[in-house]
Amino acid sequence: MNYDAFLSRAGANMQESAIRQMGTVLSKSKDMISFAPGYPAEDQFPWPPLTEIAQELLTGADGSVLQYGPTRGYRPLREATLEMMRSRGITSDIDRVVITTGSQQGLDLVARVLLDPDDVVLMELPSYTGAITAFRNVGAVMVGVSQSDDGIDIERLDQTYLALKSEGRRIKMLYLVPNFQNPTGLMLSTAKRTQALEWAGRRDILIVEDDPYRDLYFGNEGPDGSTRAIAADDAEGRVVYLSSFSKTLAPGFRVGWLSAPAPLASRIEFAKQAGDLCTSVLDQRIVHAAWKRGLIDAHLPELRAHYRHKCETMVSAINRYMPGRLRWTPPRGGFFLWAALTSGLESRDVMPHAQARGVIFVNGSAFFVDGTGAEFMRLSFSAPSPARIDEGIARLAAAIEAAAEARPVSQGSTP
Amino acid sequence: MNYDAFLSRAGANMQESAIRQMGTVLSKSKDMISFAPGYPAEDQFPWPPLTEIAQELLTGADGSVLQYGPTRGYRPLREATLEMMRSRGITSDIDRVVITTGSQQGLDLVARVLLDPDDVVLMELPSYTGAITAFRNVGAVMVGVSQSDDGIDIERLDQTYLALKSEGRRIKMLYLVPNFQNPTGLMLSTAKRTQALEWAGRRDILIVEDDPYRDLYFGNEGPDGSTRAIAADDAEGRVVYLSSFSKTLAPGFRVGWLSAPAPLASRIEFAKQAGDLCTSVLDQRIVHAAWKRGLIDAHLPELRAHYRHKCETMVSAINRYMPGRLRWTPPRGGFFLWAALTSGLESRDVMPHAQARGVIFVNGSAFFVDGTGAEFMRLSFSAPSPARIDEGIARLAAAIEAAAEARPVSQGSTP
Repeated sequence: MNYDAFLSRAGANMQESAIRQMGTVLSKSKDMISFAPGYPAEDQFPWPPLTEIAQELLTGADGSVLQYGPTRGYRPLREATLEMMRSRGITSDIDRVVITTGSQQGLDLVARVLLDPDDVVLMELPSYTGAITAFRNVGAVMVGVSQSDDGIDIERLDQTYLALKSEGRRIKMLYLVPNFQNPTGLMLSTAKRTQALEWAGRRDILIVEDDPYRDLYFGNEGPDGSTRAIAADDAEGRVVYLSSFSKTLAPGFRVGWLSAPAPLASRIEFAKQAGDLCTSVLDQRIVHAAWKRGLIDAHLPELRAHYRHKCETMVSAINRYMPGRLRWTPPRGGFFLWAALTSGLESRDVMPHAQARGVIFVNGSAFFVDGTGAEFMRLSFSAPSPARIDEGIARLAAAIEAAAEARPVSQGSTP
Repeated sequence: MNYDAFLSRAGANMQESAIRQMGTVLSKSKDMISFAPGYPAEDQFPWPPLTEIAQELLTGADGSVLQYGPTRGYRPLREATLEMMRSRGITSDIDRVVITTGSQQGLDLVARVLLDPDDVVLMELPSYTGAITAFRNVGAVMVGVSQSDDGIDIERLDQTYLALKSEGRRIKMLYLVPNFQNPTGLMLSTAKRTQALEWAGRRDILIVEDDPYRDLYFGNEGPDGSTRAIAADDAEGRVVYLSSFSKTLAPGFRVGWLSAPAPLASRIEFAKQAGDLCTSVLDQRIVHAAWKRGLIDAHLPELRAHYRHKCETMVSAINRYMPGRLRWTPPRGGFFLWAALTSGLESRDVMPHAQARGVIFVNGSAFFVDGTGAEFMRLSFSAPSPARIDEGIARLAAAIEAAAEARPVSQGSTP
């Protein structure tokens, strides 16, 4: 049977995520070193207290732990997210919070509730592939705006808006990852956050603010206020804020949350009713108990030190094994080193050599909605041990060397 | 701010599920007896072995338990579903199986991959509201076909198909719940299963077969083969089969699965990548371990006896407290008694009186895509204890009495 005629337009256009594709490659080889998916470090999950919590929850004394739950989520967990947001400067309200099956579901629900086919989403160039996929799956048109080291170019954002507007396009939202952006690791400057919010108000656009890495800074970004959410200054109700427990506790619990203006939160709830009825109740209960015990907050300093150390390990390995082969802006937090190949090489030319040598990454072009970015690679340092990072970079250096040698002369080779 | 202009067409059309709405009513009152959502009995969850399993999984020895997992699901669990399907006569294949965040997600993914706005879904009249909502959220048109005690009317199905075809409609699928249908508790007869599959082949339509209640029969429906899935005889690749662990283990784990022809399974996987990346990994691991220990199969006889007893309790309470007020076809399994009010009463007239007396149910009209069904109510007997079922039916009898008395004379009152 041929199923093409049965597919919806959305279904026919769906593509495999480049990151998830690498997950498949990874699962096929035991010795592969993965710089591909942004997996948190498993040895940082608080295993013993989580076992305790699970034991306490599963006695059967409270049957609701394994029952269907409310679509908006377990109320004490929703209240916990209010408190977490408060510590980030955000004043939300219980009626605005929806617990989601990971932040990814939040993006998907937002896309479905807000975007019709051909509606425009403006976003950073490059941006998170998971958001790109969610927006693509509802047929939205994504238009990227370039960013510099302090984030998206606000002037160009407005020029892009005006050009699209003059073409009669309907522009619905600006998608931003202001803190330790995926894939670049950059931060949107405080001044630009203010400007972005002001711009959204002036142009009557919603902002979708995706903030999963916020607590994982390497310097003093948290204390000095530069991670302050855009949503914190949103008096008008123009920002949908998304965050997650995947990076600070564990992603195998699929638990994230969003805070949206109440009328949108209702719609998002209805979409989630049809989507999965509710998020895993056991996961929600464990995450809530972990938060209540202070496990998440108490662990953040160690977690920051852990990822900072891994980032430094990767940077020094690159400097040792392949000086001059890659250039990058040092990430200020998060999970990723976003590196450009020098000498005109493209990451897809490196990939087969890398896989053959037992190391993988994600091709940078997957993060660009305008088809550019061929010279970039996203290197995730979060999961492998420092020793494996070092070994992986050695393998990658050899792969890049091999790719450079194999490159046809016609493509030019002046460094 | 007014958000109407920001909503997608789908978002603007989304409605709250009638069942979930009742969940909200329920959460607001401690003494409310709920015949509304089809919640499994919490005292039937195998708490002690689940605690043991959780403890074994959370030692930290296997970090992947709390890590992101493959979008298609934990492979040993996918293999387990193959074995379960084999015992139901279905020959599937690992490449056709996708673990879903409950069967509800399966319906949602199928809808997104297959249905464009205005595509037609044929379904039983009445049918499961969760499917109705998932199909509505992608803008599909649902057309109901009446059913008798042995299921959907195949002749009328074809007439409906031809009428729609002559209007130029694109008819994509037939959605069926052949075993202990939600809400009617009916079974599609073996002959009609064969006819439905044959019809789908002749008319080139896909069948989406939703089978969550299959193991919960009250008589000898399982052993005598009458629960045999339509998918079991699907040589052509025309059936998408969905099932779940929510009814036989626990629904707080959001774990279901589907088996689809491989080209559709790929598309469904891509949709799920954007939807939630993967189903809760801890949930999947616990469900797999429970299956492997034989907890699910071993418990089925007790579970069947448990729900049969509750069904009988409800039926005898109705006969005791309000003889002649309701009529129904005895359910042959599942969670629901599907009852019609006699004397021209409508269930929405009863609802306020019922809530005031501390009992709720779901208005039958929520299950009809053609706007009919006002006289029906779905009474779920699965969750309350037998004593509460008895008390709830007493309250309901009083509510129906009060509604009958309050009825305006103009509506007619001949029994």
